[in-house]
Amino acid sequence: MPHPLDSFFAPASIALIGASRDHEKIPGRLLSMLRKNEYPGHIYPVNPNYSDIDGIACYKSVAEIGAPIDLAVIIIPARAVLSALEQCAAAGVKNAVIISSGFAEEGGDSAAMQDAIAGLAKRTGMRISGPNAEGFFSQMQRVAATFSPAVDVKPGVVPLVATKRRIGIVAQSGGIGFAYYHRAKALGVAVSYVVSAGNESDLGAGEFLDYMVQDASTDVILLFIEGIRDVEKFLAAARRAAELKKPIIVTKVGRSGAGERAAASHTASMAGWSAAYDAVFAKYGFIVSNDLDEALTVAAVLASNPLPKGDRVAVVTVSGGAGIWGADAVALRGLQVPELSEPIQAGIKALMPSYGSARNPIDVTAQGVTSGGLQKSVDLLTASDDVDAILVVLSLSSEVRMPFKEAELKPVLSAQRMPVVFYSYTVPSDFARRELAKSGVVVLSGLTHVGVALRQLVDYARFELPRPAHDTRLPPRDLSTHLKSPALSEADSKALLRAAGIALPDEVLVMDKSGLDEAIARVSFPLAMKVQSPDIAHKSEVGGVRVNVTTKGEVFLAFESLLNNARKHRPDASIQGVLLAPMAKKGVEIIVGTMTDATFGPMVMVGLGGITTELFRDVVYRPAPVSAEEAGAMLSGLKAAPLLNGFRGAAKADVCALARLIADVSVLAARHAREIAEIELNPVLVHGEGQGVTIVDALVVGRK
Amino acid sequence: MPHPLDSFFAPASIALIGASRDHEKIPGRLLSMLRKNEYPGHIYPVNPNYSDIDGIACYKSVAEIGAPIDLAVIIIPARAVLSALEQCAAAGVKNAVIISSGFAEEGGDSAAMQDAIAGLAKRTGMRISGPNAEGFFSQMQRVAATFSPAVDVKPGVVPLVATKRRIGIVAQSGGIGFAYYHRAKALGVAVSYVVSAGNESDLGAGEFLDYMVQDASTDVILLFIEGIRDVEKFLAAARRAAELKKPIIVTKVGRSGAGERAAASHTASMAGWSAAYDAVFAKYGFIVSNDLDEALTVAAVLASNPLPKGDRVAVVTVSGGAGIWGADAVALRGLQVPELSEPIQAGIKALMPSYGSARNPIDVTAQGVTSGGLQKSVDLLTASDDVDAILVVLSLSSEVRMPFKEAELKPVLSAQRMPVVFYSYTVPSDFARRELAKSGVVVLSGLTHVGVALRQLVDYARFELPRPAHDTRLPPRDLSTHLKSPALSEADSKALLRAAGIALPDEVLVMDKSGLDEAIARVSFPLAMKVQSPDIAHKSEVGGVRVNVTTKGEVFLAFESLLNNARKHRPDASIQGVLLAPMAKKGVEIIVGTMTDATFGPMVMVGLGGITTELFRDVVYRPAPVSAEEAGAMLSGLKAAPLLNGFRGAAKADVCALARLIADVSVLAARHAREIAEIELNPVLVHGEGQGVTIVDALVVGRK
Repeated sequence: MPHPLDSFFAPASIALIGASRDHEKIPGRLLSMLRKNEYPGHIYPVNPNYSDIDGIACYKSVAEIGAPIDLAVIIIPARAVLSALEQCAAAGVKNAVIISSGFAEEGGDSAAMQDAIAGLAKRTGMRISGPNAEGFFSQMQRVAATFSPAVDVKPGVVPLVATKRRIGIVAQSGGIGFAYYHRAKALGVAVSYVVSAGNESDLGAGEFLDYMVQDASTDVILLFIEGIRDVEKFLAAARRAAELKKPIIVTKVGRSGAGERAAASHTASMAGWSAAYDAVFAKYGFIVSNDLDEALTVAAVLASNPLPKGDRVAVVTVSGGAGIWGADAVALRGLQVPELSEPIQAGIKALMPSYGSARNPIDVTAQGVTSGGLQKSVDLLTASDDVDAILVVLSLSSEVRMPFKEAELKPVLSAQRMPVVFYSYTVPSDFARRELAKSGVVVLSGLTHVGVALRQLVDYARFELPRPAHDTRLPPRDLSTHLKSPALSEADSKALLRAAGIALPDEVLVMDKSGLDEAIARVSFPLAMKVQSPDIAHKSEVGGVRVNVTTKGEVFLAFESLLNNARKHRPDASIQGVLLAPMAKKGVEIIVGTMTDATFGPMVMVGLGGITTELFRDVVYRPAPVSAEEAGAMLSGLKAAPLLNGFRGAAKADVCALARLIADVSVLAARHAREIAEIELNPVLVHGEGQGVTIVDALVVGRK
Repeated sequence: MPHPLDSFFAPASIALIGASRDHEKIPGRLLSMLRKNEYPGHIYPVNPNYSDIDGIACYKSVAEIGAPIDLAVIIIPARAVLSALEQCAAAGVKNAVIISSGFAEEGGDSAAMQDAIAGLAKRTGMRISGPNAEGFFSQMQRVAATFSPAVDVKPGVVPLVATKRRIGIVAQSGGIGFAYYHRAKALGVAVSYVVSAGNESDLGAGEFLDYMVQDASTDVILLFIEGIRDVEKFLAAARRAAELKKPIIVTKVGRSGAGERAAASHTASMAGWSAAYDAVFAKYGFIVSNDLDEALTVAAVLASNPLPKGDRVAVVTVSGGAGIWGADAVALRGLQVPELSEPIQAGIKALMPSYGSARNPIDVTAQGVTSGGLQKSVDLLTASDDVDAILVVLSLSSEVRMPFKEAELKPVLSAQRMPVVFYSYTVPSDFARRELAKSGVVVLSGLTHVGVALRQLVDYARFELPRPAHDTRLPPRDLSTHLKSPALSEADSKALLRAAGIALPDEVLVMDKSGLDEAIARVSFPLAMKVQSPDIAHKSEVGGVRVNVTTKGEVFLAFESLLNNARKHRPDASIQGVLLAPMAKKGVEIIVGTMTDATFGPMVMVGLGGITTELFRDVVYRPAPVSAEEAGAMLSGLKAAPLLNGFRGAAKADVCALARLIADVSVLAARHAREIAEIELNPVLVHGEGQGVTIVDALVVGRK
């Protein structure tokens, strides 16, 4: 199916605006990179100072070319860029990449120039990447529209290619995008495209991601972002990738204060709130990695292996100590390293010395290499139902000896029955990499990364895109009367929630002592009393709360004293009265909330209630709305999940009711995203199975 | 100072027992490795089948040599090893390394052979390493007493050496020990020794560690262990290293179930309980790493840099995206990446294009390399008081261009004012490694590892060996009358603790209803009542606990019902009566305990009490005894530490009283290690500052 960016990534002709004869400088490097990579289309250098460069005719302007141009690559001083673009648009150029720097990342006038570029793209329909980009590289069409040294072609060097499947690389930072490419090449992982997005005046990481998702030559995607600007396109691409089951490995930087500060000045993006990004990544099954080698290891394993059917791993080694380390590396990430069945053990044992071990890890010893025990173990394991993946731990430093023969290994791996991953504890030799590449093997050299990669593969294989939230449980309601001011008291907040269709205990707001008798009749003892004011967020701090009140006399005394306390502490606060509420029966204390992220809009969260939430940061977020099913998955993601599932002999909690509440609140937040900024239900008490939940306290904040 | 192992690591003569002419096989490789590495001493091959090997005279037996032998390297079938050793001892050989496998790791008869070797070592005083070892390598004396291909010398290859300081490598696994060496060589980190310990019939990892600690040519130690056998020697070496401030980076494998299982069969060691190992590592300031590359990164940074004086890091980069990532990598590990002072910013800003950034991360942009901005930034920062360490993030893939000049960089780094660490996001070229090595730089290529290394350096610089525990607070007491049976009830346990000098609330054990009146008079209301039996560990589970009892009538009713419940649930239990205890005033719930580790003996632990301890595994261990000061450090190591320090406006807890209690309990456990297996105080309530602690429940378990 054709894609709007086809002419961008596979241009039939390229105008190089600012081309130069100086190969040492960036403009000169662009032309030579294009030619060295044997770009098959037309190249039109544009520079009024030359009539030709390296034997190619050079044009004074784009207008002079007089032939269709699919892509203009622009590398001229920032202040000249806009008029060059105008000329391109006039000449019918379809796409442009602006390599030049000095725009929004500088602020002031320079930022205004970038706005003008964005305006031009919108007005003319020409698609523009950059400015401040490092361009892109298409391995598929041999387009090196970049000055990155990573795409330089070295004479006499035969590329190392181990994988048939290819990874596509989308990075806002050109430095990192091409570093991924450079490292992928060194590992023998085939690449389809590398694209750097830079300042994203028009084309953004979301749209580039979309291209990779639909592109048939891209099997795995590596994504590096500081902050997403084209959010809708990004989300659509993310959903499509999940539906197609095409893995996306994402790195999001700007997670620390210093990183965020730098991201703002670097590609002029707002790095934003990382938790919201992680919530979106989790929703769409992205594989998150915050390390370059780790991300590439995951990509390499995905590009060279099928997904595992389960989480049982066999570790096969020639060195006992390394095998133990290998077993730790996968087992400590929650994967199983089970003892093998008797027949398999017997089969393996036959081909190793007596001091080897056929349990798991399987130590065939150094002699197992020559005796064939190593290959035979892999054969037996891939054919067995004992395990779902194999980790081979060995030394691949030799420049002359290979522990596997292509004729034996390749057929076993080609069958793609389960992932078989090769880790070398010594520095792998070029010889070993090239020999094993013939069997489709990528040699890996970071054990922790390998353990993480296997864990990620298992999780990715299990991932299912959550079905869309049904918002039919909550009837659509007009809540505007409840949101006349952004600050709501607990009673106002609860009134809003009730109006929206969320169940809450029967409570009475008493404004005057004369109403207490009637209130007591409705709310039975023991009860809680809480002073109400939209101006007082923390009622306990002003002495505004009394719990476990058991007699009428106490109620009357408390009423006076709560009001007095509040007036004394906060003389300026507008006080509504005192809320009388039944004491809730016991339950697990949970916090449920929603908030609005600047990038992704409404988010829903759940965490263990009480001080531990903050202390252990045990909170899970998702973009709102979520279904009850997805809310259930959020709950399983809590470290405190066992508390809800009958921890230490306690009764199981009503997880279903809690999941429904989370779903309802998320639907409410999403539906009223323009009116509601935040909802906080804290605590929600989750009672025993079938006994529901009680919202004890609630706070809704309207949009300002 | 001479060390008993000097003749082992620097032998003047070596007998090679089982030498062979076949260079392809291990026995043949041993001789050729020794010669290729230009061993300067005498080599005496021993093999009755040859008169000479490769031009060296070969002997029929050790006895025939007739010259002093410092070291015998033995590589003959397992069943022939013992008699060869007897001959060695008879010939006055000082040390032996047994490469041969097939001993304790096989079990049965083979294990008995190993016991005989250990016996021979004890009897004769000959020091023996192995069996099942891969030998050792001394870079200092050019002794390659190993068949490891890692020590092979390749003609024409000039070694890469970046560091003046050297690392010593001690590994129970030869595969891993020499993998460390192989990777260290590739990085340019100089090595003093590599030694593999194998089955440790006589010489163990602890003794080898001791050698590296005292060795003047070793500056940093890499230690790889499955389980320690020579515990006393290990602990003495650990203490000495801490006193000398010589860093030890340790990897302990066998942490997972599968890993532990494999360790038992591999070098026949018990991997043991990892938490006890980690507690010992923490006590002596070891740097723990569970990844090979990470461990080497820490070693490389230590070998090429001074320790930092604080935790403020400047990140200097040529690529915005990579700089943000670099800032994240250190900041997310709790280090500071502060904005720089105005003068420094101005100085840096002068040498970069307008779109660069001089804040922190400092992005000098690609142009900053040629303009000198990169070097100048490093100069300014090392001379400033703004930061304590510098992380340079750049691309070092070029085979021809260098972003630094030796003449400029070397003097700045040689001053060793602060750590300056170089990370390349592209694969570093051999050219770059060799060029930067001239300035003493090790080029690193794993960013997360670099972040961890900087964090570890900061922690190591701050580490101080805790002063020994003073056990004078607790008077020595004979507790044997309390420990006639290993199972103690709560009341018995508390009686023991009181006898030992630990303060507990006044409580009364009532055996018969007639004693209740007197007990109530002593223990005031509200009170708690708990059935007592050495056979009932979990009193609540048999309905044996009543809390908040406020009247005499309730006490009498509860007394009957607690006893009835216990008799009904556990008719076989021997019941002592009911313990009446005052209800403790509020406090933070903590658990304090001791247990006995099979390797290291008594350990003390502290954790947040309640179910969260188990859920979040928030527990800190140390070998007992600890001082109150060290107990305070344990408390700061808890994730829940803020709860004790006035979290969210709560009162500060009496941390001093808690630390004293932990110290006292640890002294008790250490002093009575032969009688007491476990102590559990759970919960201990920690009251407000100056108000002490209350031990609510206690259990002591005697040694069986």
